[in-house]
Amino acid sequence: MFLRGFTRISKAGFNNKRLHWSCSPALATAAYNQLCSANPLKDITSKHWECAEINFTGSHVLLGARRQVHYGATSAVEDQLDPFSLVADELSLLANRLRSMVVAEVPKLASGAEYFFKMGVEGKRFRPTVLLLMATALNMPVPMSSAERSSNFGVVDTLATELRTRQQCIAEITEMIHVASLLHDDVLDDADTRRGISSLNSVMGNKLAVLAGDFLLSRACVALASLNNTEVVSLLAKVVEHLVTGETMQMTTTSEQRLNMEYYMQKTYYKTASLISNSCKAIALLAGQTAEVATLAFEYGKNLGLAYQLIDDVLDYTGTSASLGKGSLSDIRHGIVTAPLLFAIEEFPQLSKVVQRGFDNSADIDIALEYLGRSQGIQRAKDLAQKHATQAAQAIDSLPENDDEDVRRSRRALVDLTHRVITRTK
Amino acid sequence: MFLRGFTRISKAGFNNKRLHWSCSPALATAAYNQLCSANPLKDITSKHWECAEINFTGSHVLLGARRQVHYGATSAVEDQLDPFSLVADELSLLANRLRSMVVAEVPKLASGAEYFFKMGVEGKRFRPTVLLLMATALNMPVPMSSAERSSNFGVVDTLATELRTRQQCIAEITEMIHVASLLHDDVLDDADTRRGISSLNSVMGNKLAVLAGDFLLSRACVALASLNNTEVVSLLAKVVEHLVTGETMQMTTTSEQRLNMEYYMQKTYYKTASLISNSCKAIALLAGQTAEVATLAFEYGKNLGLAYQLIDDVLDYTGTSASLGKGSLSDIRHGIVTAPLLFAIEEFPQLSKVVQRGFDNSADIDIALEYLGRSQGIQRAKDLAQKHATQAAQAIDSLPENDDEDVRRSRRALVDLTHRVITRTK
Repeated sequence: MFLRGFTRISKAGFNNKRLHWSCSPALATAAYNQLCSANPLKDITSKHWECAEINFTGSHVLLGARRQVHYGATSAVEDQLDPFSLVADELSLLANRLRSMVVAEVPKLASGAEYFFKMGVEGKRFRPTVLLLMATALNMPVPMSSAERSSNFGVVDTLATELRTRQQCIAEITEMIHVASLLHDDVLDDADTRRGISSLNSVMGNKLAVLAGDFLLSRACVALASLNNTEVVSLLAKVVEHLVTGETMQMTTTSEQRLNMEYYMQKTYYKTASLISNSCKAIALLAGQTAEVATLAFEYGKNLGLAYQLIDDVLDYTGTSASLGKGSLSDIRHGIVTAPLLFAIEEFPQLSKVVQRGFDNSADIDIALEYLGRSQGIQRAKDLAQKHATQAAQAIDSLPENDDEDVRRSRRALVDLTHRVITRTK
Repeated sequence: MFLRGFTRISKAGFNNKRLHWSCSPALATAAYNQLCSANPLKDITSKHWECAEINFTGSHVLLGARRQVHYGATSAVEDQLDPFSLVADELSLLANRLRSMVVAEVPKLASGAEYFFKMGVEGKRFRPTVLLLMATALNMPVPMSSAERSSNFGVVDTLATELRTRQQCIAEITEMIHVASLLHDDVLDDADTRRGISSLNSVMGNKLAVLAGDFLLSRACVALASLNNTEVVSLLAKVVEHLVTGETMQMTTTSEQRLNMEYYMQKTYYKTASLISNSCKAIALLAGQTAEVATLAFEYGKNLGLAYQLIDDVLDYTGTSASLGKGSLSDIRHGIVTAPLLFAIEEFPQLSKVVQRGFDNSADIDIALEYLGRSQGIQRAKDLAQKHATQAAQAIDSLPENDDEDVRRSRRALVDLTHRVITRTK
């Protein structure tokens, strides 16, 4: 899932701060509480952005006319310049609302859902950041009849505030759907219990994880209904279906599908890119933008999501180093075949037989890694990620021109994110 | 859950037909397929209603002016008179639509969801039956201005057809939410795996059951959005939250809550009565009825649901006989304390200590049964069920008077259901 990778950024960030996020859940929660103790949401927000900053070693795009660009630096000045900081205050508000939203009538359910928001403290802010930046990036005049213009005279500010609130609501709903999908993804299959239990399940149990996810989905649905926009409701309900379809595709891959690049990209869209692309589109629809603009917003989200996942697949093999086998190798160990290996098979067709055996035997993993090392698989996966990142940036560049400084800054931040996603090494 | 009990009716019905529905899932599916082979939906419908008829030994309310009433009989004539038969054709259409709806892009997911519809072949029709009867029962003039009346002149029939389609959609959505909740309820907690695995989980695995449920929820959400009625979307989204809350309340009861009748009734409302009551209300809202009528529809559903569950709790102790201990004793074995035992504790406070030990020890179950047998617990639970059934019937009787024969027949059928629910013995 999208968050998993982004959570890695968080882990690394916290590690840099000598806080081991990848430790036991109890310790992680304690660490989180410690971070939050002064001002729960404000503090974690600023620390978090600092952490996120540390992990991007690539180039940073100039975010403001008077701002200085640093490459690979992590100075205090730069911390205030990153895309995330542009919407930091709104993100705090949003986090507050999400937190109060999970307070249900049954304390255990609330703590279950909240626990997961804590666990995903980093990842949960990436999507809202993109969506709030997109809202500003599309903050431009909407085609309107003269009658509409005259009837809106004098209430433009009120309408703008109302629109922003509705767009923030999309950001919250997106986060709820995302966390719900994570809760449900972590429910173990009967056969999986032998592989060891994830931290979430060991804390909550399968059933409570399912119920907490359902609770979030129902809250998301109530919030969606309040937006009173049928197209947006359908769009985000469809996303839930995509998340399910993607997860099921991964669970039930036939040996033929396992070797199919098209199948892999379709699954990646469903599992990773559908949520961010459709919620970007929802931001445009709520603003009353044209179908063309809504499509560009969708294309940005889709390509950003695909680029992110492709890099995630590469990092699963390489980890922090450039060499193979230094990553967690989590995908291949679970029999999940991703882009690097699919490209390697194109060069070495004999590798397909090994892949089709499913990697239950660790010797097969070694053989696959050897082939992968001799192939262009890693590089071609990176190239494909670059292609999608470029397409995402092009979508932003294709938006109708606008002179407003806030709009331009947010668009640059969105383009900056496309660079960050592909240049990250963690 | 609501369905579980109604499924028992089905099982008994099929047993009467010498088809053992409580056999292995594969066999059950084969039996179902056999029943459906000629005309999948029409055949199972007529056979099913016949079965359902057999299991009600109570009095039947006259359903039509020219129809003859039989008490405790199961003649072919009577099979055509029961509440279910009034909406049989529509139910077939609905079942067809549900079936085509579960055909997703991923065959395994579709078969997973469809498998469950097959499993719940009986129960899945109870809620739609109530809702379609309610739709007809409320088919009466809506307060309308003269301007609205003149603008609708000549299109009344079209509007009526459109309304009916939207109300059928509520019936479908209700069924989807219900089946999704069953799928998720059946996901096992880590601690539960030792208790033995339910048939669904053994066939699908935890994760696929979760995904199939999510899939149904997302389809329900898309269908809800298409109704373009914010109040109805909120109402049914709230139901999902209630189902979750009820299940969580049951899972996380403290020893104090375990002895609290109010807590028990609240949980029962969330788990059993919220879905049917709120979907009855949705039927009224879509018809544009007044708040008073919508409340009566809600009250009918709520009290029918509560009465049903109370009888279910009694039957879990008594089974088909009048004596204790002949039921499956499933609740008490799982440490779930229901109305009969709560009433018994009021008479014998010393029983509370036994209850608080949680029934891990089977000797405690025997002690509790002995106390229960000496108490009025069973009778008081039945009396409470009767009270709610009467309140449900009163809600129907309080609807604005109407001379239309279809309307009157549907109202009688809804009242008839309140008798059937409390007089059933299986």
